Amino acid sequence: MKALHFDKTLSVKDIPLPEPNTGEAIIKVLKAGICNTDLEILKGYIKGFNGIPGHEFIGVVEDVSSSEFNYLVNRKVTAEINCVCNRCEMCMRGLPRHCRNRSVLGIDRRNGAFAEYISVPLENIVPIPENISDNSALFIEPLAAAFEIQQQIKITSDQKVLLIGDGKLAHLTALSLKQTGCQLTVFGKHTEKISLLERYSIRSVIEKDQLEGSIFDVVIEASGSPNGFTDGIGLVRPRGIFILKSTYASDLSFNPASVVVDEISIIGSRCGSFEPAVRFLSETGVDLSYLISRIYPLSEGVTAFHEAQKTHMMKIIIDCTR
Amino acid sequence: MKALHFDKTLSVKDIPLPEPNTGEAIIKVLKAGICNTDLEILKGYIKGFNGIPGHEFIGVVEDVSSSEFNYLVNRKVTAEINCVCNRCEMCMRGLPRHCRNRSVLGIDRRNGAFAEYISVPLENIVPIPENISDNSALFIEPLAAAFEIQQQIKITSDQKVLLIGDGKLAHLTALSLKQTGCQLTVFGKHTEKISLLERYSIRSVIEKDQLEGSIFDVVIEASGSPNGFTDGIGLVRPRGIFILKSTYASDLSFNPASVVVDEISIIGSRCGSFEPAVRFLSETGVDLSYLISRIYPLSEGVTAFHEAQKTHMMKIIIDCTR
Repeated sequence: MKALHFDKTLSVKDIPLPEPNTGEAIIKVLKAGICNTDLEILKGYIKGFNGIPGHEFIGVVEDVSSSEFNYLVNRKVTAEINCVCNRCEMCMRGLPRHCRNRSVLGIDRRNGAFAEYISVPLENIVPIPENISDNSALFIEPLAAAFEIQQQIKITSDQKVLLIGDGKLAHLTALSLKQTGCQLTVFGKHTEKISLLERYSIRSVIEKDQLEGSIFDVVIEASGSPNGFTDGIGLVRPRGIFILKSTYASDLSFNPASVVVDEISIIGSRCGSFEPAVRFLSETGVDLSYLISRIYPLSEGVTAFHEAQKTHMMKIIIDCTR
Repeated sequence: MKALHFDKTLSVKDIPLPEPNTGEAIIKVLKAGICNTDLEILKGYIKGFNGIPGHEFIGVVEDVSSSEFNYLVNRKVTAEINCVCNRCEMCMRGLPRHCRNRSVLGIDRRNGAFAEYISVPLENIVPIPENISDNSALFIEPLAAAFEIQQQIKITSDQKVLLIGDGKLAHLTALSLKQTGCQLTVFGKHTEKISLLERYSIRSVIEKDQLEGSIFDVVIEASGSPNGFTDGIGLVRPRGIFILKSTYASDLSFNPASVVVDEISIIGSRCGSFEPAVRFLSETGVDLSYLISRIYPLSEGVTAFHEAQKTHMMKIIIDCTR
């Protein structure tokens, strides 16, 4: 099959079809989105990965290794990205996404979705309700990461929340936060990107000066820029919360005195359960296709990755059927 | 009156008695302890303070400005250190220790306790139960800071907790944590200091190697050393909590990827309500005098401060009646 393969460099290759291992299903990939994590793999920030990247995808189940899962065949699905052992301390605690023995689709010791076919554990498969369009369903994984924040902390309508960032993840996070009724401000630096929020009547700010003197119950960094951390931490009220949603290649530094004196919490937030994201898309009918900048065929996957690195781009999709 | 005064340098001075302002009481100070924060003021790490330092003290109420508080006269007391407005957003939220207009005894725009007399707001006064010895009562303020952790997060008997540090604050924190029944390990570098924990049958560790492969639900940094942060953050389990109890002069840096991927919470923790500390000392009868290294008369306050900076010292007390 055709696949986008990474081993120090990225190239389109012809590689063997995945084996239908016990407990897994073979999915024919329809489309897959390029995420910042994929770009970090390419830059070598995420060390040790070689294979097929890609973890945001939709596809159709072709083959299941166990007859009790026959009902999944021909269903349009996506899949949770953490492949877990169900036996370690973290799995036992009900925190499977922190499984000590996990592999992760397209990120850690497991091939991902930029290919014609992908093999995933049956338990990871999430059917996509028919009323969710393909273009929206492609965002289920990052939207689940956005909803993860609300699995970690309670956000209520009386809270002032600042979201830093205007990229794909920031947009999805804004959307997830809007559901809480909180008093949301989004701070971004790219006029075209942030203007996309107008459709949701979310207050946006382009200049840092406009935030001067403001203070927030919760600040969420989703810009991917270390400046987002430095700027944001100073805008959290005493006993408030700073959510770190982006990862960075370099270390972050902070003034411990202010964190201690103001008793601020800095909370890391990664990926989340797909269930709230699927429910949200199905119930609200929100159409996320406006977040897609371009669609490339799999054969042009390398070009797609180059395009995805451009600042003004939102989501780049790879059509794995072409 | 005689007072230990700081204005770029520390000296014993003769200064006017404090005014008995409306809403305040004049307390004759008996004894006061030197805290690391006092040493930081001396080093210039806490900028802008000049006046009398000292915020851990016991004394006897001499004069109250309001007759309804007459019952306090001649009572042995200590006092909460944050003097608050009761009007700002933080006070209204029930977070008076984060009052936006606060002054702080001996730390921020208010004279402290290294003097014959101190004036404090009546509402700050905390009577000391008769069954608490003077030497133990001197630790109410830092012990309240230790109990603050349990006001911020729930610590239970099934949790593995690592406490980093072996100084005064670490000892008091260990004591407060022991009450929870948690599985506590204390990691310190000074054999004599850490051996003081033996009386409480608390597991202690001197070499970092002994912690290799261990992982904790909660790690508390109370060593005051940036290494405590760097070492400790790597020992927190996924979704675990790192409590930052010490302040430092320099910035701290961390690897954001590990905090995000493991969804770790870093929580700053400062001073706390006196009530749990007073109740603990009164109910358990724990005698904290073993934590006192030396007592100096007020007239030798400068020497006392120099002594307090020596690594092997635990608490240095100033007797303000001499």
